[in-house]
Amino acid sequence: MDDIRLSLLKQITNPKGDLYHALKKSDDSFNGFGEAYFTTVNFDEIKGWKKHTKMILNLIVPVGAVKFVIFNDETGEFKDITLSQSNYQRLTVPSGLWVAFKGVSNELNLVLNIANIEHDPSESENCLLEEIKYEW
Amino acid sequence: MDDIRLSLLKQITNPKGDLYHALKKSDDSFNGFGEAYFTTVNFDEIKGWKKHTKMILNLIVPVGAVKFVIFNDETGEFKDITLSQSNYQRLTVPSGLWVAFKGVSNELNLVLNIANIEHDPSESENCLLEEIKYEW
Repeated sequence: MDDIRLSLLKQITNPKGDLYHALKKSDDSFNGFGEAYFTTVNFDEIKGWKKHTKMILNLIVPVGAVKFVIFNDETGEFKDITLSQSNYQRLTVPSGLWVAFKGVSNELNLVLNIANIEHDPSESENCLLEEIKYEW
Repeated sequence: MDDIRLSLLKQITNPKGDLYHALKKSDDSFNGFGEAYFTTVNFDEIKGWKKHTKMILNLIVPVGAVKFVIFNDETGEFKDITLSQSNYQRLTVPSGLWVAFKGVSNELNLVLNIANIEHDPSESENCLLEEIKYEW
């Protein structure tokens, strides 16, 4: 869990439209580029649980608000964080941990994941939401 | 202008929230990873013109609609394309071309740029919107 990392990201205001940082090659939490994709999570819905054996996630929430919960099945420890434009940080999740996330805003909740490898179903495990007890 | 590339991207529907592809390392239009950042452009506002000497842009519009115009100052040629969730493509722009873009939807217009190098003000030139005549 000590390798979970939160990095504050710059938001640069501009009268024509703001700019928000996501990830640079020179950032400490850059672990190589494999794929970038967006995932959305509807209000009050929860996606998860998923555990990757190789993928390192870099999660950014440019729109809406998303609560992420990370679970370590070796120690039984949980960690949660809600990201949004008002708490604009990048969440880096190492492999080997369970992740689930919930849509908190009742409009669009958008997550960008910049991952170190391309999507590969053979390197991840899924389990049902109920299989890891957590008070959402 | 022949190196400008449009790549159709997958949109995967999911009852809990959809997933949209952005860029994979194995894609033809991947030119290395330097930085990913978001830029927004308000309704009817135009950002530009900017010409990069090194940066190759990979532009994706996950929210709203954005009209991009590309200008070649050697040939006088223009190319325009409007991207949105209903025309969900990745626009790859090589260096050496002028780019400007306009917010088309009256809600949030969000652009993700995945660039081959980190932001470096010394490798780009700006000029005023009026300096390159275009009927927006």
